[in-house]
Amino acid sequence: MSPAARKRIRKVALPPGTLVYVGAERAEPVRISVIHYDADRIEQRQVASAGEAADFRGRPGVAWINVDGLHQLEVIEELGRRFDLHPLVLEDIANTAQRPKLEDYGQSLFIVVKMLTWNDQAARVESEQVSLILGQDFLLTFQERPGDVFDLIRDRLRNDKGRIRRMGADYLAYALLDAILDYYFTVLEQIGDRIEILEDLEVRNPRPETLREIHRLKREMITLRRAAWPLRDVVNSLERGKNSLLREDTGVYFRDLYDHAVQVIENTETYRDMLSGLLDLYMSAVSNRMNEVMKVLTIIATIFIPLTFIAGIYGMNFEFMPELGRPWGYPAALGVMALVALAMLIYFRRKKWL
Amino acid sequence: MSPAARKRIRKVALPPGTLVYVGAERAEPVRISVIHYDADRIEQRQVASAGEAADFRGRPGVAWINVDGLHQLEVIEELGRRFDLHPLVLEDIANTAQRPKLEDYGQSLFIVVKMLTWNDQAARVESEQVSLILGQDFLLTFQERPGDVFDLIRDRLRNDKGRIRRMGADYLAYALLDAILDYYFTVLEQIGDRIEILEDLEVRNPRPETLREIHRLKREMITLRRAAWPLRDVVNSLERGKNSLLREDTGVYFRDLYDHAVQVIENTETYRDMLSGLLDLYMSAVSNRMNEVMKVLTIIATIFIPLTFIAGIYGMNFEFMPELGRPWGYPAALGVMALVALAMLIYFRRKKWL
Amino acid sequence: MSPAARKRIRKVALPPGTLVYVGAERAEPVRISVIHYDADRIEQRQVASAGEAADFRGRPGVAWINVDGLHQLEVIEELGRRFDLHPLVLEDIANTAQRPKLEDYGQSLFIVVKMLTWNDQAARVESEQVSLILGQDFLLTFQERPGDVFDLIRDRLRNDKGRIRRMGADYLAYALLDAILDYYFTVLEQIGDRIEILEDLEVRNPRPETLREIHRLKREMITLRRAAWPLRDVVNSLERGKNSLLREDTGVYFRDLYDHAVQVIENTETYRDMLSGLLDLYMSAVSNRMNEVMKVLTIIATIFIPLTFIAGIYGMNFEFMPELGRPWGYPAALGVMALVALAMLIYFRRKKWL
Amino acid sequence: MSPAARKRIRKVALPPGTLVYVGAERAEPVRISVIHYDADRIEQRQVASAGEAADFRGRPGVAWINVDGLHQLEVIEELGRRFDLHPLVLEDIANTAQRPKLEDYGQSLFIVVKMLTWNDQAARVESEQVSLILGQDFLLTFQERPGDVFDLIRDRLRNDKGRIRRMGADYLAYALLDAILDYYFTVLEQIGDRIEILEDLEVRNPRPETLREIHRLKREMITLRRAAWPLRDVVNSLERGKNSLLREDTGVYFRDLYDHAVQVIENTETYRDMLSGLLDLYMSAVSNRMNEVMKVLTIIATIFIPLTFIAGIYGMNFEFMPELGRPWGYPAALGVMALVALAMLIYFRRKKWL
Amino acid sequence: MSPAARKRIRKVALPPGTLVYVGAERAEPVRISVIHYDADRIEQRQVASAGEAADFRGRPGVAWINVDGLHQLEVIEELGRRFDLHPLVLEDIANTAQRPKLEDYGQSLFIVVKMLTWNDQAARVESEQVSLILGQDFLLTFQERPGDVFDLIRDRLRNDKGRIRRMGADYLAYALLDAILDYYFTVLEQIGDRIEILEDLEVRNPRPETLREIHRLKREMITLRRAAWPLRDVVNSLERGKNSLLREDTGVYFRDLYDHAVQVIENTETYRDMLSGLLDLYMSAVSNRMNEVMKVLTIIATIFIPLTFIAGIYGMNFEFMPELGRPWGYPAALGVMALVALAMLIYFRRKKWL
Repeated sequence: MSPAARKRIRKVALPPGTLVYVGAERAEPVRISVIHYDADRIEQRQVASAGEAADFRGRPGVAWINVDGLHQLEVIEELGRRFDLHPLVLEDIANTAQRPKLEDYGQSLFIVVKMLTWNDQAARVESEQVSLILGQDFLLTFQERPGDVFDLIRDRLRNDKGRIRRMGADYLAYALLDAILDYYFTVLEQIGDRIEILEDLEVRNPRPETLREIHRLKREMITLRRAAWPLRDVVNSLERGKNSLLREDTGVYFRDLYDHAVQVIENTETYRDMLSGLLDLYMSAVSNRMNEVMKVLTIIATIFIPLTFIAGIYGMNFEFMPELGRPWGYPAALGVMALVALAMLIYFRRKKWL
Repeated sequence: MSPAARKRIRKVALPPGTLVYVGAERAEPVRISVIHYDADRIEQRQVASAGEAADFRGRPGVAWINVDGLHQLEVIEELGRRFDLHPLVLEDIANTAQRPKLEDYGQSLFIVVKMLTWNDQAARVESEQVSLILGQDFLLTFQERPGDVFDLIRDRLRNDKGRIRRMGADYLAYALLDAILDYYFTVLEQIGDRIEILEDLEVRNPRPETLREIHRLKREMITLRRAAWPLRDVVNSLERGKNSLLREDTGVYFRDLYDHAVQVIENTETYRDMLSGLLDLYMSAVSNRMNEVMKVLTIIATIFIPLTFIAGIYGMNFEFMPELGRPWGYPAALGVMALVALAMLIYFRRKKWL
Repeated sequence: MSPAARKRIRKVALPPGTLVYVGAERAEPVRISVIHYDADRIEQRQVASAGEAADFRGRPGVAWINVDGLHQLEVIEELGRRFDLHPLVLEDIANTAQRPKLEDYGQSLFIVVKMLTWNDQAARVESEQVSLILGQDFLLTFQERPGDVFDLIRDRLRNDKGRIRRMGADYLAYALLDAILDYYFTVLEQIGDRIEILEDLEVRNPRPETLREIHRLKREMITLRRAAWPLRDVVNSLERGKNSLLREDTGVYFRDLYDHAVQVIENTETYRDMLSGLLDLYMSAVSNRMNEVMKVLTIIATIFIPLTFIAGIYGMNFEFMPELGRPWGYPAALGVMALVALAMLIYFRRKKWL
Repeated sequence: MSPAARKRIRKVALPPGTLVYVGAERAEPVRISVIHYDADRIEQRQVASAGEAADFRGRPGVAWINVDGLHQLEVIEELGRRFDLHPLVLEDIANTAQRPKLEDYGQSLFIVVKMLTWNDQAARVESEQVSLILGQDFLLTFQERPGDVFDLIRDRLRNDKGRIRRMGADYLAYALLDAILDYYFTVLEQIGDRIEILEDLEVRNPRPETLREIHRLKREMITLRRAAWPLRDVVNSLERGKNSLLREDTGVYFRDLYDHAVQVIENTETYRDMLSGLLDLYMSAVSNRMNEVMKVLTIIATIFIPLTFIAGIYGMNFEFMPELGRPWGYPAALGVMALVALAMLIYFRRKKWL
Repeated sequence: MSPAARKRIRKVALPPGTLVYVGAERAEPVRISVIHYDADRIEQRQVASAGEAADFRGRPGVAWINVDGLHQLEVIEELGRRFDLHPLVLEDIANTAQRPKLEDYGQSLFIVVKMLTWNDQAARVESEQVSLILGQDFLLTFQERPGDVFDLIRDRLRNDKGRIRRMGADYLAYALLDAILDYYFTVLEQIGDRIEILEDLEVRNPRPETLREIHRLKREMITLRRAAWPLRDVVNSLERGKNSLLREDTGVYFRDLYDHAVQVIENTETYRDMLSGLLDLYMSAVSNRMNEVMKVLTIIATIFIPLTFIAGIYGMNFEFMPELGRPWGYPAALGVMALVALAMLIYFRRKKWL
């Protein structure tokens, strides 16, 4: 439900900078890959240790070091030592319950964002923390588990598509953030589809399952909002960023990124409004239905109750009931009943209940 | 429902500046028209290619180049090359899922707004992206499909009405934005009419269709809001704009435009309030109705159930029921029934149920 | 409902500054009256034409020119020419769908406010646009129809009450705005009275008409809010106004006016809260009522249904029903019925339904 | 309901500075008391006229002049003349429909606050306007009626408790405002008690009276909010006050006062939340109750209606009904009825209705 | 419910700086403990009097003086005298109804926060005031009752874990605030668990107890919010703090603390949203249930009422009812009944009620 609260609890009054891994246990080793490139060349390698990866630092060109998996804290610590990272940064990388944020440490920028994906089986949004550390000529990225979102950027680097190879580490950070943000739109699309299906279902036949689904989607929207709003602030800070790590010509790309973040938020709010509208529609469909049920009951009951009463009267066993002996008694009784029923029907028609 | 999210999904991790057309497929070719004018002369021409249109650039006077249709990306690209537009601008022109926005590229201003029209058959608001690029002596405009809103401005240019011919490209941009905003009022009028009709219907007879209509109008209001709020920000930036492309004497017109944008937003919010009020009214009309139904059932049932019980008693076949043999038995039983019914009626009258 | 949207629609893509009168057709001619005064003298005259009125400009003292009726556009145009007014100002005077606003044209201040009056027959708020143009030594005022609110100020001028004759045109503008704002309080009082009556009615007997009245008052509050909030901004700008037309010693009066505007808004919001409270009260009164109805039905039905069943059993025509032949059969059956009824009553009392 | 609106109405278009008393008529004369003190001495006197009180002005030490009752406008006018007060100040003192506010007149500060008391008989908050005028060496205070809140400060002055005698008029103003604010906490305590009682009642047995009480308390909260929010602004202005009348060492006391004002507002908002929660609880208790009623009705009716039908069948008078003649007919019919009833009970138990 | 309002009431118009203890009466004496440390040494002592504790002031290193219990006002007064604390600070330490706040007295910073703990028996949040006074080389802390949260910090000091011994008093204050904030996460975890349990319960079977529990949790969230929001402001002020008591290298830790505070607030708001969602779910589950009950009643009643009526007809005692004498009469009547029942069932199936 609230993994953030769950996870943090394992640490009470520990000294700051104490690394605590809060994710699921994992068996496979942490995978570290390095891509080192400039406009002319690109070198991609899978390295065995943090130290080996750190050797790329300082060479001309841009070094992108990506770590998949956070469960080997010594890897993070080693990278921290080699890249002069503040202990609090390392703590935040390991503890994946962070809010998206941007922290400026002068020599490096520390960025935390949430990668969202749509799990179609569970029909829910899954969230994973991605940490980026942007230096003058390097970019460190940390993911909780290997994912394919960064592969697309690796392809663009390898194939030298767009301007990515000719620009610095800040543009690489932009490209990664842009790819992450694109996934938000994918998630929104999935939710949008489900809302449309719900709307169709509801108009035809409101059912408790529909309600539960609306409720569930509303909760998924909370996850989305919690990831998107602070992400917008992060991108906004990057756009207006005065840090020398952000070159001026990258600014326009971050402005574009900011536009996308605002679009995500707007769609999120629109979907929230639509889900609230669906809830209202559902509630009123239920009460309409109830109304209809009540009307049928009322019509049947109010027509037959008086008739049954009349039948009851002539079912009494009094010896002196003159009507009972008359030949016209039975047809007359039936006639009276028909009249009463007719009067009732006219009354209902007038009330517009029929 | 949310075309923005739908459309964007087709592009994940593509390099920025990649043009993607996200609209419907179209067969007819893109239409490019140029109007070149100054206070003394006006020349209007339909041109075959982007290159031909670009030749008007740099001549004395104002060149207005309008492109109807975005499905030929090479036209946009060619114009971009000839007018020195940033790749991100071209991407945003082609991808019509943008929010209304104003971007200042120094030599040119890039403006995206939404043109709204009321589709009376579908009874819904239709939205189309209009992009404007304002330069020193030219104005580029892009529409998704040919529309008549710009024709009115063309007439004013041709007939030299008002001051439009004596002012620069910024005033032309103002005139176009003003015409677009005038359509918002038309849309509002249509929605206002429908709200009034709904209100009348509801007071007379609440029906599930009315509810659905309210719900639908509420959703159309979301479209309107999403177009109008950022439009206000765009116009506000133009009014306070420090860019040299905006002459000082045009400022007062943009202030007027801003007033209109605020008026649109205010009306939108008022209609939202009114639709919420209608929803409340509907819900309480439904529960009033239910109440009435229940009362009728209760009155009929509570009067006849005891009477039927009395009839039931004297329908029992016990041998020793002295009343049955008495001549006054039958009238007495009827009398008791009448008394019970009367007591019930008095009780109901006292409770104000009758 | 939304006259603003209605009225504006008549103008799509017309050049700015085109005068369009959007009010009702009127037969009587426009009435122009001039009051010219200083501390020593006062001259009041009804003039035939705009030109005659404009002749008062530039004489020592303050000239107050009031125009009742906007349907003769040539009068407005002539005054505009003589007093050097911007075409957009003239357009806004004629098109009475403006929001209250203050526009600073350097040589003159243009103020638009709404005059509210309570129409007791229709039980609704009526709104009329009043435009003021404040110059160095003159004040132009435009009303849609002649009203008595300005007469009170005329009396004060004539009788030299207070300091009005010894101060400039800005103080006159203050006095007029103050008088207009006083009417807002009158309107609020009327609405306050109606809310109190509604509250009394509701506590005694909730009825659908009450609901409709609450709904209607809520809508009148929207009109009030739409007039009052921007009016506050206008007065606030006047108070903090840096324009040389506003003398420093008038500032304290505008501060007082601002206080009154805030008071109006506060009362408006309070009434909105109270109307929402009334709506809640109504809805819960309705469901309370329904509850009571249901209880009566349930009690009657659940007591008599089992009794009727017992009577039904002994109404069966089986030949071998030994009880039927016994002398104690009938009293025993009645006794069982009484016991069942008693048990039911005890059960209901325990459940606190009785 | 809204005394502010009621009271102001009596004045339409009167010149500003016209004194209008809007409170209840009073017979007793206005009481003017003067306390003149410095660190060494204190003199307390009841004076007969405003002039006599004004004589204390200018003597070394602090003069506190308190006026109980506003119905003798000449007293206020005389004080205004003697202490050089602006006509608008006098108007605001007399017209007790003011919002709490702080106005800086350079030589003096004009403070309006609301004194709240809890009327236990009517179970409502009562509000009284208190006006303070703080000068260099004097403090004028105006109350609508004599109250005991200032007596506690008089005691502290007389007994030289705390630092009150050693500080200036601004500290005296602080002490008075602090005492007034303390009464807000008393009012909150009373309302808190009532909310707790309501909560207890509701859990046990929801009744329409409870609802009415919640509604009433909500309205009292409006009064509290309307007094507390602007009071916070007043105190905040005093804390940050740059006026030379406020000595620097008094600042820390006004900061403390500000804390208290914020606390009052927070409690008010908390109570509002709690009352809304109570309303929700009430509404759902009502529908729970309805649910229970419906269930009982449904169970009784659905069990007995089929049984009565079976009895009805064997009550028919057909000559050829073979079952009627069999000795096992009657017990068999009873047995079938028992089976039907049993099946129904099992069904209900399964549905968890029993 | 609102202890703040309750407690403050005991003091009306007392001079500021008057110490009033508002907590529960306690028998055990106040416990004062001193820890004096620098990077090399640490001394921990239990002292008997405030004077003895104050002797540690001014020695090289950091002196942390902790007071457990506030019921001996003379201890607080003595410490105030020895550490030059403002009377208002002492008043706020003793009166535990303060909002969290930060006050800058130049030579010292006064910080008030709330320590929250989860009382599992009562299933509610318990709040305790913790006051900190940060000086150049000392830190005074006051708790209402001895707790174990500070023990963890004492351990870190003793065992020289992390950098705590090498940094100043400001870092100690940070460590204490961080430990307090960690407890907020513990509380959030408990509430999160309960919300999940409620959600499970509700989906299976909505019951009035669930409603009451939701209502109760919502109220606990109010306590949390009231503690967390101002705490965030306190930490924010510390982070941006310009006071010389806060060393620059501690800034990054306060920024981390601020992140945690924002996380607490976000979780709080998320839980509030989820509780509101649960309330909606509950209300609609109740009305779904009602709907189902009504349907069963309606189906049973509408099927059997007409059948009973038919049986009633042939139970009439008219002498001339030809059907009664026919051998096929009885089976025909039964057949008609079966047909009617069948028609009803088909109707219900069509309406999707079955």
